[in-house]
Amino acid sequence: MTHIEVPESLRDEIKASHGAKQLPQEIQSQLFEAAVRAKSKSYSPYSKFPVGAAVLTESGEVFLGCNVENASYGGAICAERTAFVKAVSEGQQKFLAVGVVTNLKSFASPCGFCRQFMVEFGKDLQVYLFQEDGSVQFYVLRELLPHSFGPEDLEQFNAQA
Amino acid sequence: MTHIEVPESLRDEIKASHGAKQLPQEIQSQLFEAAVRAKSKSYSPYSKFPVGAAVLTESGEVFLGCNVENASYGGAICAERTAFVKAVSEGQQKFLAVGVVTNLKSFASPCGFCRQFMVEFGKDLQVYLFQEDGSVQFYVLRELLPHSFGPEDLEQFNAQA
Amino acid sequence: MTHIEVPESLRDEIKASHGAKQLPQEIQSQLFEAAVRAKSKSYSPYSKFPVGAAVLTESGEVFLGCNVENASYGGAICAERTAFVKAVSEGQQKFLAVGVVTNLKSFASPCGFCRQFMVEFGKDLQVYLFQEDGSVQFYVLRELLPHSFGPEDLEQFNAQA
Amino acid sequence: MTHIEVPESLRDEIKASHGAKQLPQEIQSQLFEAAVRAKSKSYSPYSKFPVGAAVLTESGEVFLGCNVENASYGGAICAERTAFVKAVSEGQQKFLAVGVVTNLKSFASPCGFCRQFMVEFGKDLQVYLFQEDGSVQFYVLRELLPHSFGPEDLEQFNAQA
Ligand SMILES: [Zn+2]
Ligand SMILES: [Zn+2]
Ligand SMILES: [Zn+2]
Ligand SMILES: [Zn+2]
Repeated sequence: MTHIEVPESLRDEIKASHGAKQLPQEIQSQLFEAAVRAKSKSYSPYSKFPVGAAVLTESGEVFLGCNVENASYGGAICAERTAFVKAVSEGQQKFLAVGVVTNLKSFASPCGFCRQFMVEFGKDLQVYLFQEDGSVQFYVLRELLPHSFGPEDLEQFNAQA
Repeated sequence: MTHIEVPESLRDEIKASHGAKQLPQEIQSQLFEAAVRAKSKSYSPYSKFPVGAAVLTESGEVFLGCNVENASYGGAICAERTAFVKAVSEGQQKFLAVGVVTNLKSFASPCGFCRQFMVEFGKDLQVYLFQEDGSVQFYVLRELLPHSFGPEDLEQFNAQA
Repeated sequence: MTHIEVPESLRDEIKASHGAKQLPQEIQSQLFEAAVRAKSKSYSPYSKFPVGAAVLTESGEVFLGCNVENASYGGAICAERTAFVKAVSEGQQKFLAVGVVTNLKSFASPCGFCRQFMVEFGKDLQVYLFQEDGSVQFYVLRELLPHSFGPEDLEQFNAQA
Repeated sequence: MTHIEVPESLRDEIKASHGAKQLPQEIQSQLFEAAVRAKSKSYSPYSKFPVGAAVLTESGEVFLGCNVENASYGGAICAERTAFVKAVSEGQQKFLAVGVVTNLKSFASPCGFCRQFMVEFGKDLQVYLFQEDGSVQFYVLRELLPHSFGPEDLEQFNAQA
């Protein structure tokens, strides 16, 4: 497992900005490299479209995920979700940022499945889309899944009853 | 199966507006009623959160969907996806609008899974969120899943190779 | 929608046999033809592997399903699940038999996802695997998903608490 | 990450037996403890049914997985799949055994989704179902997903074309 040191003051700034304040270049680069490394493990014999993801927890841990496909196509689990379940299964539920990289010569955004899966743990997640050449595009998860359906809806539903 | 007559001129206007021009009140009401009827069939013993959806094809057919859950929670299929696979399996792949209704006393938006599933068939889909009292909120799918990952990304990937 | 007349006495025999007593040749043929028709609607641009399914309810209704894929491979919904959510969304929850056909020159069995989805509604479901040439292989769902995890496990869990 | 030493001769025996030869008591106990530890990380606010899984690779690595649920129920990823994507994303694709534990006072078997996901990597996988009191039930994956649909079907399909 990789560790990226995120100073507490920076972490606080990011949280105060609801994810809008970007990570410094150096940390973005570490996230990029982690995502590239993750991509190399991809099991994607069907799509032949390897994806790598790296999620950075508030505590500075980095978890690497790749897509893992299945002969029954609907069984595929994307890189982002792999990274997230890895982190959760190691006791982490607070996330700062995720970086994603593919072999596309354009920016590939997380699919709606992954957006939904990630938003469960917070709308302020920073999303860095990388290309292999290191170019980057930045979003906050709430921009990618506006008006999301989440835990708060079910809570309200239970409160209603 | 229900049929809603959508005059060709209106259909053309909607398409020209990329989904922005809303359906007239009367058709929205028919969509609402169809979604409510769909909700009554929901199989949701685990969430106890019934959802109904009605999708309107370009040709004026309406397909009703409800959520169908599973003891293995990850097996659940939402109302929107049910409506869509129904339509596709009857030879329909061009959609104008989807209406969704729950028992929540607020607007519940399609989850990211459904947004991803629906965007496969076009970003200009009109999304009407209904409450049981008939109040409505309107979006175009591209607003709910901006920068989406779709067929065009895989096409570009294949073109790259 | 298609209707296949299943005499009540036969239905009772099948139920008494826990699915073991096969449908007569003629009804199997109708199921086969329905599954073939369903396959023609398949949306499978990624796998290029069209699948058709037809599920027969206790009341004699037949619902046709095909696979519907997604650019995010994990979003694919198989033919069997399509047929089942169609039926459920039309108020049906009691099933006698499902027929499945692909273009494979061998018998393709439902994937584990579909087995899990179908077992929610009963283990005695008859499963007919067809090839395009009409040859057939027969199973009862309990044979395809032995020691299954289902609603009864969650009920027991709730009773435990 | 945990490591369990599996002597090469034992590994060979297990493989020669197609999974039938069980692991010695001591290794089963280590797998059980790992699965229990994994369960403690479960994110299951909706089902309130925590599950833990531990998968043992041929090289002796152990990866811990728990279930991770979502407000959109269909987004849930089970403990077994979590353990598997973790392993794959760390470069492992050869598995000897998986252990699963829940809080049920009976044996809970992997759902069909997980059986399908795991069979992608081999039918001879050993499956140990544990109860909290340490009692155990043993299967080989091929017993839990007979006549499975897997990579070989798609290969045959491509060969056909
Ligand atoms: Zn994804
Ligand atoms: Zn949904
Ligand atoms: Zn399937
Ligand atoms: Zn499972």
